[in-house]
Amino acid sequence: MIDVRTAHADLAEVLDARLAAAKEASRRLARATTAEKDAALAAIAERLRARVDDIVAANREDLERGREAGLGTGLLDRLTLDDARIGAIADAVLDVVGLGDPVGETVSGRTLPNGVRIEQVRVPLGVVGAIYEARPNVTVDIAALALKSGNAVALRGGSAAERTNAVLVEVLREAIAGAGLPGDVVQTVDDYGREGARHLMRARDHVDVLIPRGSAALIRAVVDEATVPVIETGAGVVHMFLDASAREDWSVDLVHNAKVQRPSVCNALETLLVHADAADRLLPPVLARLEASGVTVHGDDRVRALHPGALPTTDEDWATEHMSLDLNVGVVDSLDDALAHIRRYSTRHTESIVTNDLGNAERFLDEVDAAAVMVNASTRFTDGAEFGFGAEVGISTQKLHARGPMGLPELTSTKWIVRGSGHVRA
Amino acid sequence: MIDVRTAHADLAEVLDARLAAAKEASRRLARATTAEKDAALAAIAERLRARVDDIVAANREDLERGREAGLGTGLLDRLTLDDARIGAIADAVLDVVGLGDPVGETVSGRTLPNGVRIEQVRVPLGVVGAIYEARPNVTVDIAALALKSGNAVALRGGSAAERTNAVLVEVLREAIAGAGLPGDVVQTVDDYGREGARHLMRARDHVDVLIPRGSAALIRAVVDEATVPVIETGAGVVHMFLDASAREDWSVDLVHNAKVQRPSVCNALETLLVHADAADRLLPPVLARLEASGVTVHGDDRVRALHPGALPTTDEDWATEHMSLDLNVGVVDSLDDALAHIRRYSTRHTESIVTNDLGNAERFLDEVDAAAVMVNASTRFTDGAEFGFGAEVGISTQKLHARGPMGLPELTSTKWIVRGSGHVRA
Repeated sequence: MIDVRTAHADLAEVLDARLAAAKEASRRLARATTAEKDAALAAIAERLRARVDDIVAANREDLERGREAGLGTGLLDRLTLDDARIGAIADAVLDVVGLGDPVGETVSGRTLPNGVRIEQVRVPLGVVGAIYEARPNVTVDIAALALKSGNAVALRGGSAAERTNAVLVEVLREAIAGAGLPGDVVQTVDDYGREGARHLMRARDHVDVLIPRGSAALIRAVVDEATVPVIETGAGVVHMFLDASAREDWSVDLVHNAKVQRPSVCNALETLLVHADAADRLLPPVLARLEASGVTVHGDDRVRALHPGALPTTDEDWATEHMSLDLNVGVVDSLDDALAHIRRYSTRHTESIVTNDLGNAERFLDEVDAAAVMVNASTRFTDGAEFGFGAEVGISTQKLHARGPMGLPELTSTKWIVRGSGHVRA
Repeated sequence: MIDVRTAHADLAEVLDARLAAAKEASRRLARATTAEKDAALAAIAERLRARVDDIVAANREDLERGREAGLGTGLLDRLTLDDARIGAIADAVLDVVGLGDPVGETVSGRTLPNGVRIEQVRVPLGVVGAIYEARPNVTVDIAALALKSGNAVALRGGSAAERTNAVLVEVLREAIAGAGLPGDVVQTVDDYGREGARHLMRARDHVDVLIPRGSAALIRAVVDEATVPVIETGAGVVHMFLDASAREDWSVDLVHNAKVQRPSVCNALETLLVHADAADRLLPPVLARLEASGVTVHGDDRVRALHPGALPTTDEDWATEHMSLDLNVGVVDSLDDALAHIRRYSTRHTESIVTNDLGNAERFLDEVDAAAVMVNASTRFTDGAEFGFGAEVGISTQKLHARGPMGLPELTSTKWIVRGSGHVRA
């Protein structure tokens, strides 16, 4: 008979040992040269291709289990790996080779009046805990980005992808060890289910930061449970405001691009606000273009008066990240009303104004509190690749450490190097 | 009869309203000019001097209560305010006027290949929650630093200073309002005791960051309880390692300065490690100088063989921040053993090596994981004023957002400003 308390203690011990091994290995990785890390990345890409059959076989088991459990088509699609997708994952790993290594960069430095020299130098965070949902490509993506920035990873993927992730972790560890760095820089707690996730979130001795990637519910659960510091990569209830002076051609193109180009991502538009003075002029062409692309309009009373085909909006709609071709549309009487609406419903991701009024543009840029605030640009630009970062770890919607698209430097900390010649403080 | 649940709901409502008022006021403060903020700081200094009698009277009540409750002499001294101390607090507020305003600084910026212009600009965090213990000067210090960096504060001071802090908060609010900014940028939850602290730590809608200042136990409690992101300003179990090649004169001066100059602060030395090959040469002069200044030496067996007057060390000693004239001293056989000891007991604040061996210096700087790592310098240099920051919000011992001494820029976040001309994403 199993004593539950003993089993629990054993579990904690096993998980502790695993995370301690990641921490220990992270010390070696922190001192690895860029060339060593790049060689490990190349080895990962090669091994992914070499073991494509094993990965696909494991993935089939997950898919079968998913189908039996009644997972939806969208979820099953995100879960699926085939030769082409695995090739794309390997290519993405090779892209990371081309990125600059942030470790060792001198961020600031000076000689103090007494002659002591101080330098602030970038160092890896240590061990990055990643908690994510059904996309198994995240397993490889996050491990590759962490590796390049000198960090070990402790992974907790979605249970739906458990078999696939287990093989991917094996591939990562073998490839890294084969390239001469410790395989222990990649660890998983997937085989310990919820208890593994719980342990990871509270392992302050071994894990330096947690990055949850997934639904608002997942992120909220991590924030509530974790004692390890969290970087939130949040949901986007993203707004665009068409001011009274907005150009019609820009309005039509910007709203369409922000909503339709890729509706399932966090920088896609969820709510369109239109100044009352421009509603007659702008709404008909804007909504016509959207509906031609299959967008479902949820309008307030004034929108529905102009555009009777719109569904009614609810208070819940305004607060919802649809991630689909649904769009909330409202008419407001002033810039102030638009700002108040955004203040109330924004998730502080990305907000944009379309205007030709300089004063209004500056007020919007100044007063809206969000990771990215735009004038006359599509909200889809809030993106690491678009910003020229080369890779994106996620988009932070918090204010500490990183805000907006996160590149490799956001996976580092700094330390102060102080050099004296017997200097004492007076 | 009071229904406890109703009372609890009312309490939450009152606290919510207060923190919401701080958030609302922070929006005005975020747009205040440097001149407006400096005028408010000058008004605070003036009003502190004008109301010195009220402050001293309230402080006497706290002191009386403290004496009745049996507070120790050290604690009572830290709690005490008199004319001179209030004058010093006012002077410190005027010093903040002279500091650069971090808000509005462009941290980075570029024009994307498609012509879109992006700029990353410093903005205030919003509302800073401060949780601290018996020193009432912190109430004014943190409010002044927050004000200059455009942030509102929500304060939770020690219950021992409750009356004093209540008057100080009144002074701050009156002075700020008198200078034309909203007095609501300073709020306290002190009058709601532990429930106030608990509410503050979980007020994610209104509070952007928590900064605990005080004992390791206080900081640990905040980390455990908080859902608002925390910047840890941690304890310092600070080490110095005298390598085999260390100069005797530097060793004597550096150890003495690090331990004795101000033993009650976090960058003071707690543990001295000496290379076995240098123990005979260095320990006698180093310990003689320390003992002449009243230091109590806690030594391992090898230290006590050389210096029989030393007390024995325990495992607990090695992990303790004494904050007194007690020093742990150990002999190690190698740099590796010194690094292993530091890895085990360090709180990742400040670590220093004294050596003339270039290779060992570089290995120490490279391998030790701490906010500040030093060679041939006193650990007392880890300090905002010494680093030239002009003011210090605290010394962060975490890796996210800020590491080491925090100045005003560490009380800010950034936002991305994106300017297009109808640009859409391809």
